[in-house]
Amino acid sequence: METLYLDHDKNTVVILDQNLLPQKIEYLPLTDIHQVWAAIRELKVRGAPAIGVVAAMGLYIEMKNTSSQDSFEEKFNAACKYLSTSRPTAVNLDWALAQMTEVYEANKTKPIPEIITALGDAADKIAADDTNICRRIGQHGATLLKEGMGILTHCNAGALAATKYGTALAPIYIAKEQGLNLRVYADETRPVLQGARLTAFELHQASIDTTLICDNMAATVMAKGLVDVVFVGCDRVAANGDTANKIGTYGVAVLAKNFGIPFYVCAPLSTIDMATATGDDIVIEERDPAEVTDLWYREPMAPKGVKVFNPAFDVTPANFISGYITENGIILPPFSL
Amino acid sequence: METLYLDHDKNTVVILDQNLLPQKIEYLPLTDIHQVWAAIRELKVRGAPAIGVVAAMGLYIEMKNTSSQDSFEEKFNAACKYLSTSRPTAVNLDWALAQMTEVYEANKTKPIPEIITALGDAADKIAADDTNICRRIGQHGATLLKEGMGILTHCNAGALAATKYGTALAPIYIAKEQGLNLRVYADETRPVLQGARLTAFELHQASIDTTLICDNMAATVMAKGLVDVVFVGCDRVAANGDTANKIGTYGVAVLAKNFGIPFYVCAPLSTIDMATATGDDIVIEERDPAEVTDLWYREPMAPKGVKVFNPAFDVTPANFISGYITENGIILPPFSL
Repeated sequence: METLYLDHDKNTVVILDQNLLPQKIEYLPLTDIHQVWAAIRELKVRGAPAIGVVAAMGLYIEMKNTSSQDSFEEKFNAACKYLSTSRPTAVNLDWALAQMTEVYEANKTKPIPEIITALGDAADKIAADDTNICRRIGQHGATLLKEGMGILTHCNAGALAATKYGTALAPIYIAKEQGLNLRVYADETRPVLQGARLTAFELHQASIDTTLICDNMAATVMAKGLVDVVFVGCDRVAANGDTANKIGTYGVAVLAKNFGIPFYVCAPLSTIDMATATGDDIVIEERDPAEVTDLWYREPMAPKGVKVFNPAFDVTPANFISGYITENGIILPPFSL
Repeated sequence: METLYLDHDKNTVVILDQNLLPQKIEYLPLTDIHQVWAAIRELKVRGAPAIGVVAAMGLYIEMKNTSSQDSFEEKFNAACKYLSTSRPTAVNLDWALAQMTEVYEANKTKPIPEIITALGDAADKIAADDTNICRRIGQHGATLLKEGMGILTHCNAGALAATKYGTALAPIYIAKEQGLNLRVYADETRPVLQGARLTAFELHQASIDTTLICDNMAATVMAKGLVDVVFVGCDRVAANGDTANKIGTYGVAVLAKNFGIPFYVCAPLSTIDMATATGDDIVIEERDPAEVTDLWYREPMAPKGVKVFNPAFDVTPANFISGYITENGIILPPFSL
């Protein structure tokens, strides 16, 4: 099952609509930059690596649609700026747009059809690189796993969050290829339930022994000795190792430390943002209170008018993190990139 | 707004149906012991103190309905046994039934109408005592509060969990009577959302500054310095101080310790069960997986067939608990009761 791909013939970015999972497996064609922006904003495609890939693809299809009246450079810059506003926390989005900008700068003196071809190749390469990088993250992470181990994960940093394999789930997929039987505990991850809808879905489809729990059950599962290691993905790692990831990650890290369970962040090196000194400098997106009060926008589950705090991410301080599993190995700050 | 009361004229236990809150305020008459059992089981009435009171009232209305063909003693014992199976974790249920049994034993040689009157008086007294005890818990707890403080609470141990005031929220209500302005952070408390539906509802109705958060946001709120103290209720305290309460409490306690925030358990002395040596001896109820996968039994939010772990409670070890706020003051184990 593919998470996303670029249909060059139709000049369309095609994504698996993640808001419909696990009920419906439906692919959604995105034919312009506004649809791409909205799909990212509304979490139809999500996960730091996937957002980067989709943004690069979105930029490409937009530029391919350029008419002779447009200023190509103006349009390119405006499109980059616009796409980068779709979600503020994940660094991969800006990283992918920066990759595309580099390619543009290197080719800008060429005829426009050639620039467009270069941008298309670049978008395809970002996608292919993502698959390779995630596979390597999985290989490094799998060295930490043994037969029968229990792994707890939070949110979805699996195949659905990337082109393939994902980050936090990559070690589990690779270990399964190697013949290991593992047990995975998936935090449901309120408010948007990526753990229940996506992680439980993709692991269950891959026939991996998966138990879904509410976020607040993690302490109990750990206290029972069922968890040997925690793997999470991330949206941005600061230069000092502080890590922004889905809201709730910080709490899991504190619990893991309390129970003496190693806690690993799985991420491509591109997620490490040396321009961000510490977690204090990471902008945390606050989302619609209705995600908390209305559960999927049906019947309200909280009294009208009550205040809600709905941060999409939190920042786990580096001292709670046992290591960073990257495509180049398991590393620790200070990072040399 | 009353949580529950005994209508002697109609021989009916009347409860506020908590499964309809916060959408509908609807009172439900329970006219026999099976309705009482089901109302407890289905969480239409919940909260350790309230369950005890309702069980006593239910036992009374059942015995008042005794016909001349029944063996009163057999029926009494069977009713006690049956009611005690409605939920296994809260000690208050068995405690209240034991109180009723004591009254029965003291009056059993009297004519049946006199026994019934004695049982009715006993049920009323259990309810009245609960109100007084909760008020005193509130008075002791309020001594820990100062103007502007932030309090985090988990689940609902408020007026809706008792006859009035509740346990964990009692200090907040008393402090408000004393003129303090406080900020409360209410964990929504998955899977059944007692925090969102009940705690946020009753505090908001009482005009107390309340912010609803998902359970996994507690670490962020604590890290921001917004929480000065944690108050929770409980279902059973073992002799060594280990405390069973709504699933998620243990995790909150670990977080509080990590952030240096005092963590108090608020409970009547009757919740301390000296017959239970440690938390390991407390039976933890496991509930329907659909509470996790289907959210209010509408559209499933998890893939079909995935395993689910759905414990209703967890046990917080005594070393995470700063003190036990009871009607007789703030105490620590070893308890002398």
